[in-house]
Parts: sequence; structure tokens; C-alpha cells
Amino acid sequence: MANWQVIAGGVTAAKGYKAAGITAGLKPSGAPDLTLIASDVPAIAAGVFTKSCVRAACVDFNREVLAKGCHVSAILCNAGQANASTGAEGWQNAVECAELVQKALNTVDGVLVASTGVIGKQLLMDKMRSGIAKIAPLISPDGGEDASRSIMTTDTVPKSIALETVIDGKPVRIGGICKGSGMIHPNMATMLGFVTCDAGVEPKLWQKMLSSSIDASFNQVTVDGDTSTNDMVLALSNGQSGVVIDDENSDAAQQVQAMLQEVCMSLAKAIARDGEGATCMIEVNVTGASSTVAARQIAKTIVGSSLVKSAVFGNDPNWGRIAAAAGRSGVDFDQNLLNIQLGDFVMMKDGTPQEYDRNAASDYLKNDTVIINVGVGDGSGEGTAWGCDLSYDYVKINAEYTT
Amino acid sequence: MANWQVIAGGVTAAKGYKAAGITAGLKPSGAPDLTLIASDVPAIAAGVFTKSCVRAACVDFNREVLAKGCHVSAILCNAGQANASTGAEGWQNAVECAELVQKALNTVDGVLVASTGVIGKQLLMDKMRSGIAKIAPLISPDGGEDASRSIMTTDTVPKSIALETVIDGKPVRIGGICKGSGMIHPNMATMLGFVTCDAGVEPKLWQKMLSSSIDASFNQVTVDGDTSTNDMVLALSNGQSGVVIDDENSDAAQQVQAMLQEVCMSLAKAIARDGEGATCMIEVNVTGASSTVAARQIAKTIVGSSLVKSAVFGNDPNWGRIAAAAGRSGVDFDQNLLNIQLGDFVMMKDGTPQEYDRNAASDYLKNDTVIINVGVGDGSGEGTAWGCDLSYDYVKINAEYTT
Repeated sequence: MANWQVIAGGVTAAKGYKAAGITAGLKPSGAPDLTLIASDVPAIAAGVFTKSCVRAACVDFNREVLAKGCHVSAILCNAGQANASTGAEGWQNAVECAELVQKALNTVDGVLVASTGVIGKQLLMDKMRSGIAKIAPLISPDGGEDASRSIMTTDTVPKSIALETVIDGKPVRIGGICKGSGMIHPNMATMLGFVTCDAGVEPKLWQKMLSSSIDASFNQVTVDGDTSTNDMVLALSNGQSGVVIDDENSDAAQQVQAMLQEVCMSLAKAIARDGEGATCMIEVNVTGASSTVAARQIAKTIVGSSLVKSAVFGNDPNWGRIAAAAGRSGVDFDQNLLNIQLGDFVMMKDGTPQEYDRNAASDYLKNDTVIINVGVGDGSGEGTAWGCDLSYDYVKINAEYTT
Repeated sequence: MANWQVIAGGVTAAKGYKAAGITAGLKPSGAPDLTLIASDVPAIAAGVFTKSCVRAACVDFNREVLAKGCHVSAILCNAGQANASTGAEGWQNAVECAELVQKALNTVDGVLVASTGVIGKQLLMDKMRSGIAKIAPLISPDGGEDASRSIMTTDTVPKSIALETVIDGKPVRIGGICKGSGMIHPNMATMLGFVTCDAGVEPKLWQKMLSSSIDASFNQVTVDGDTSTNDMVLALSNGQSGVVIDDENSDAAQQVQAMLQEVCMSLAKAIARDGEGATCMIEVNVTGASSTVAARQIAKTIVGSSLVKSAVFGNDPNWGRIAAAAGRSGVDFDQNLLNIQLGDFVMMKDGTPQEYDRNAASDYLKNDTVIINVGVGDGSGEGTAWGCDLSYDYVKINAEYTT
């Protein structure tokens, strides 16, 4: 399946997409804070949103746009204010921003909006208005790099990927960018992801592909277990490659699905690695569960355990914490079938502690990627989750920031 | 209802109970590590246990004793080894310890066992055997204080309480001790609670009373979200006060229920305050939810949020984190009805941010008890949860310990 290659360009790598990122003055720091991604032609759109019942205006606004089933021409993203807990005024501001982009791009198609920043503060609308007027003429097919930087808040590195495959002799590309490094700043909480594809995928299938990909990627990342009011992943499919995907069971559809999932997993892992204060990325693979859902839940519980995370930070090969986290995951399994492996070190086999080289295992935890493999039985369910260690800097970052 | 008074004596305050705590040599530190609590007459026993499917031998052993419905004469608790992930040998050791106590106390009634310490290590049975022989003759009605200390692992203070009320002209007492301060040592994870009562409560009612009390107390405490392999609360009811409780709806039953819950809440709050690295206790009260269960879930999500915890540590009155945690709790509510109050400071009212004195609110967070009140609607459901702030010391304690 994985007959794709990594290419440059990020969110503008696919055909028919342009983007730009500028400083609109929304952030006190003067860093880039406004991003526009546009498709040359109206695109099919899909989205996955925070499940929180305290939601930003942009989340509800996008849900309405997607529910209408209209085509989408652009995604506008601002940093600085989250436009969450902002009531009717916040809603009206989201509507106005989308309308301003429609006018600036001279389109009647839908515009999706995303915000990240301080909760409870209204968007600085004067700056949004001038910013939209300024950014619209700047979008270009080379703007992917700028876009990956202007969506950043407390991220330490931009997160961008693009893949290309060939379907029916034609190149098909999927690119993506995301931001997020845990709830690093107190109110800059959000994980945002934007994906562009130049295949033309049937709308319901595109949504299904996105949801499935996110279950295996962004939903399996945890930095501190906190979900934000603004989390969202938006994906556009504009058909500019000339390849149409309308049969879920076709090889072409499976190829696009696999590539979309790879894009999402690559971005999700980048978030884990950039977790606030992180010194390493932790990957937990669970096998032998009764289902994929069960395996993923166990994996996510282990990688989210403060005890496991701080043990990794302290280079302590403390497998008892891994066993305890697996046991409390809410998924039932027979502890006599539990296997735990840290890198190449077998810690527990069929529920029985094993001898291992403690010093060598401790050294293993000094790597910048730590792999934990856990078997919980004879089932066929497998799942992976990604996270990071818990360091002094996590506390420092989150305690010493002042609103 | 609350017509009780606090008395001395802890777990031996109630009539007909004796206890002792000694150093048996199970811990490398030489601190007291073996505890025996006994009732002069066979007692009704109830228990609530960890829901983890990776369970210590003592958890399964006690479940069997309670399932048989037999009377219980004593509780034995060791620190040093958790007797978890120890297979058939661990089970046999738990059985032998209970039998040794039966012989030492010359009783055929049940003996319950509890362990806390390193996962995956067998009990040091030579030391358990000599320890049981040594401790049995030492139990006394004044032993409550020693027992509260010998169950400690990484606790910084002993946790003990006893209350007395009068029912039908007779004094009725409930005492309790517990240990736990988060999963402070990597494998010293456990929350253990032991409660003694000198009323004679009908067995099923006693179990129901204990379960209900724990739902409102120990189950609403979180330090780091990790549940251990060994968590348990055991409660004995020996009837030595001469008061019999067999009608759930009687005033006497409600009086005992309320007093039992107060004992459990007092102990639970002591755990929160002694949370690893904690500089303060956080209490979150939720009102207006659709049910008690819903309110408790929201409260526990807020008090367990790493972001809320680190904001409190940093004296940052960052109500956005409270709103975000409430929203992701899994309980649905209308964000337009959300009210958030930090101490006396109203941060959000009916979903709208409020002006408040930021410096004064920051000063409030320097107190050793921080109260967060959250309203989520018009429902009658109320619930409270307790936790602590997240400090540098949490990471230090958990990262730098070496197995």
C-alpha cells in the first residue's frame, strides 16, 4: 500500500491550493498570527471537531457550513484570541470573518474559520479586517511553509508534511499542517490541523476517510490529557489531480485513505514530539486486545499516565507503572497474559516479571524516541498511541505563564 | 444530622478494637511497615476495591473472603511489597499471611490482608512470619496512632479520624485511618483505608453504606489520575456499642451513614492535601447538573486537569482552563449557563466572562485551600471533588526515584 513518497510544499503541495501567513497584530508578540489557505476551485470539505460542550464560535460555525453540504473555497485561521466563551458577539465575529474572506477572494462558496488563543476574549476585529484585506492578495502555491508557521502558537517547530502517489497514471497529493504542543500556554490550548488533497473524493466518503484517519492519529496523541474548546481538523478535496474517488472499495480509495492516514499520523507524532517540556516522544503499541478500540484505549491510557511519563523522564525502567496503567484503562484483560517490553527489553512475560539489564534499559530511556510494546492477550486488536515524557519544564511552562 | 463530635483514637476509638504497628523489616528504610487491626468479636466486613484488571493477590483474596459472607476478626497490612503481578506464589503468600494471623489471634474467623509497595516482588515471607508473630501480642486499644503510622509509605503525615454520636442513649463510634498521597513512589501507589465501627450493621446494609460513602469521598479524590493495583477500603462493624442497625430507613441508620461518609470524606481530603508535591488542596463544587453522578464527574475532571492544577500552583486565576475542563468532562451541559467562581471571585456568569480583580484573585490562590465553585445549569445534581496543585516537586518525586 505504502507506495507514496514524501514531497515538499506542505499544505500547498497538492494541485490547486494556495496559502499565506502574515502578522496581523493579533498576538502581542508580533509573530505571524493570520493564515489563509484557499483552493482554486470549490472543494469538498470534511471536519472533525472537539467533543467539548464548551466550544469556540468557529467550531459551531464550521459545523453549520459542513452540515449544509456546500463547497468550500478557503480556511482562515487566527492565533491570539480563541473566540471561545465569547457569546453572541463571538458568533457574529466568526460570521463576519468568513464573509470578509468570501469578498476578498470573490467567491460565494463556503469559508471555514479556526481560532486559537485566549479564551473569553473577543477577536480583535479591526485587526482581523485589515489582516484579511492584506493576506488575500498574498496567497500563493508556495505559501505552505509560511502557513505552517503562522498557525503556530507555543509550538517550537512548524509541523508540515506532503505525500504523493500515482493513481491511474496521475499524481495525487495530500498535504497537511498542524499546530499543538499540549496545552502549553494556559489559553493557547488548541490542536488545529488542515489537510489538502487534489483527488476529488465523494463528500461522505471524504468525511469517513478523515474521521477514520483521525481515530488512528490525532485522537491517539496525548500530551496532558486536556482537550480544548477549539480543537479541529479540516480537510479539503478539490479534484484538481483529475482523479475521482467515489467507490470506497476501490484500490484508488484505499490508496487515498492510507495516504491520508499517513499524513495525519505524521502530524500527530510531530505534536507528541513537540509536547510541552518534552525531552522525548513515547510510542505505545498494544496487541492482542479484543478490538482496535480496546487496544487504542489501553495504549492511550499508558502513554497518558503521569507516572509512566515521569518515569521515562527520569530514565527509570519502571514497568510496574505500565502494568498499572494498562490495568486501569477500563478495558478488561487477563493479567496472566500481560506482556510488557521496553525497546528490546522484555520486562514481563505472560504475567510474570522477567530479569533484564536495568542499567541498559535505563540508558534506552535516554533516546529521543521510546517504544513500549504491550501484549494483553490473544485477540487481533492492535492500537498505537503517542505522547511525551513529563518534565520540570511542563510545570514551569504551565505555572509561570501569566494571563 | 451532623450531631457528632470528633474524638481521639482513630481506628481503635470504637469499642472492641485493638491495633498495633511495628517494623518487620519489609522496607529497606527501617520505618514501621506492618499493621494489625483486630476486633475483640467477629465483625461484619465490607470492602471496596480497585477496578483495575491488574490486581494484587490481596485484592482477590479479600474479595473471596467477603463473598463467603464470613465474619472477620482482623486486617493485616504490610508495606514494602505490593504482592501484585506475583502469580501463584503471591496468592499462596496472601493465604499464608491470613492463616498466620488466624493462628496468632486464635480465631477461625476471616482475616483480610492488604499490601502496598513494589509491584512484581514477592512478599518477604520470612519477615512476614516473624512480624506476625511479633505484632499479634502487641495489639492494644491505644494502638490506633501506631497503626496510622505503620501503613504510611510516602505520606508526609499520618491520616486518622474518629467520630462519636449517640444513638438510643448509647455512644456509637466510627474511626478510620488511610494512606496515600498520589502514586508518589513509583511502585508505592496504593490508597488504603481501614474503618472500624462499633454499631452492629446488617451486612448488606453495611456494604451499601460503605460503597455510597466512598462514591462521595475516596472516589472523588485525584492526585494524578492513576489508580493502583492494590487500592482498597475495608470497613468492620462489630456491634460492641450495643446498637443494632438493620433498617436502612431508620434515623439511626441515616445517622451512621452520615457519620461513615464524614469519616471517609475527612480521610479523602487528607489524601488530597498530602498529594505528592502539593502546596495546597483544591476543592471543586459543582451544582446545577442533571444528576449527582454528572456533577461528580465534572468536579473530578476539573480537579484532575493538569492545566488547572499548574495554574493554581502558579497563582494564575485562569478560569478558561476551568471552563475547558468542565466542557471536556463527558457530561453535556449548556455553555450559556456556565458559572465559574474562584473563592469569592466571580469569573464567568451565565456563559459570559466577568470583570474581577486579577491581583486579588491571584493572592487567593496562595491559600492552602482553594475553592472552585462551578454551576452548569438548573439541575439538582451536586458533587464535590478534591485534589491538589501540580508542582515541580511532583515531577521531581516521580522522576528521580529509582527502583
